[in-house]
Amino acid sequence: MTTENNLVKQFERIDDLQCNGFRIIQNPSAFCYGMDAVLLANFAKIRPSANVMDLGTGTGVIPLLLAAKGKGSRFTALEIQEEMAEMAERSVKLNEISDKVQVVCGDIRKVEQQFAASSFQAVTSNPPYIDQKSGLHNPSGAVNIARHEILLTLEDVIRAAAYLLEPGGTFSMVHKPFRLPEIISLLLKYKLEPKRLQLVQPHADKEPNMLLIEAIKGANPMLKVLPALVVYGADGAYTKELLEYYGDGNSISGSDTHRES
Amino acid sequence: MTTENNLVKQFERIDDLQCNGFRIIQNPSAFCYGMDAVLLANFAKIRPSANVMDLGTGTGVIPLLLAAKGKGSRFTALEIQEEMAEMAERSVKLNEISDKVQVVCGDIRKVEQQFAASSFQAVTSNPPYIDQKSGLHNPSGAVNIARHEILLTLEDVIRAAAYLLEPGGTFSMVHKPFRLPEIISLLLKYKLEPKRLQLVQPHADKEPNMLLIEAIKGANPMLKVLPALVVYGADGAYTKELLEYYGDGNSISGSDTHRES
Repeated sequence: MTTENNLVKQFERIDDLQCNGFRIIQNPSAFCYGMDAVLLANFAKIRPSANVMDLGTGTGVIPLLLAAKGKGSRFTALEIQEEMAEMAERSVKLNEISDKVQVVCGDIRKVEQQFAASSFQAVTSNPPYIDQKSGLHNPSGAVNIARHEILLTLEDVIRAAAYLLEPGGTFSMVHKPFRLPEIISLLLKYKLEPKRLQLVQPHADKEPNMLLIEAIKGANPMLKVLPALVVYGADGAYTKELLEYYGDGNSISGSDTHRES
Repeated sequence: MTTENNLVKQFERIDDLQCNGFRIIQNPSAFCYGMDAVLLANFAKIRPSANVMDLGTGTGVIPLLLAAKGKGSRFTALEIQEEMAEMAERSVKLNEISDKVQVVCGDIRKVEQQFAASSFQAVTSNPPYIDQKSGLHNPSGAVNIARHEILLTLEDVIRAAAYLLEPGGTFSMVHKPFRLPEIISLLLKYKLEPKRLQLVQPHADKEPNMLLIEAIKGANPMLKVLPALVVYGADGAYTKELLEYYGDGNSISGSDTHRES
């Protein structure tokens, strides 16, 4: 029988996901999940019965949050970095949901070798935001790979999602607003029709610094743009909208700045 | 010498554009400009020296507002409906700016026959929003043509803008959020890189019903998404942001609903 002590390594800690008792193992000196992951898990519309793939899962925070919310029944968490995949696997054990969540160490660029086409009803991703050409690289390898398109490009992620999804399946992603044209262009290239978009603004009068987008494989064109989600009110506190968006017991956790470009 | 009486026909009226004394002739039973035109004229960044084309000018409201704001030095206002072009021409005379604004009756789909390639620094358009497949058609011909893609498609407008603009020239358009993927896809197809986007929400918690987009011919990718522009506050009055956006003496005029789908 596993105990918590067996599951947590040096420099790691257990954080409460504040959602139905779920917890996550993280290494604060390497990479901790942020508001982007929490917002994506809330934004994604996934049926309770769905077979879900998370591309580039890192610590596994997205499948853990989705499982905690009952969004999906089975989860595959794909991560290329062995050390991260192993840590995610330990979080799965910590939550005793090994029957639901399978962590796979593998390459998004080679999904064809590990998974059958059209075998998922939903795909999620919180991919690296910054393309190789721009941005200062963080000296830490793990953070670098999570933030920058070193091991894969946006097109790799979208191509993989299109391959994995069954027709009518849903791809949900969090990304940066400045890359919206490229995101939409690539989604359309791979027949993933953008259906829902929400921009996240730190303040009512500030430019959005995150976007949440849902695309449906083979759907007809007709985008629903949601009202901008404003994080902080004039008083500096979280807005009612953000607290509502978090909803179902999932209180504010994670930094909203650690993945800023 | 022309007098106002000579310029205004039966059922028409003169409306104050509330911007540096500029006025416009409109026929309230046919088509009056709305908030979309005013927001576009405010959103567009156009150098004072620019040679500007407005595609599908209708009553000529966009070039009139741009001229009133000093955005551009010469204007071509292209309109396919003879009656509308003639009315726009009379508004130009009314404002005594015939040396600056040339109204041309012609077809956006055949701009090559009337204009040289790359001959404008800026192109603006408030095109029909609703594609032919959807929406109830308004019984009035002029309104119908202004609202629906009867005489031209979105692609016709974007193709014409790309042809008319010099490299580095700016295309500014107002449109509907639900068509954003198509708009971005077509802009990229014609090498007009989306550079600035603003969504307009009637209320802070309501979905946007207009979008303002700027694309630059041949520019590098990097979209700036502005904070959502909220029209009405919780008190039902125009927001400070909207009043600021109107700015430079241009008070609220025009309906924001008459072109709703």
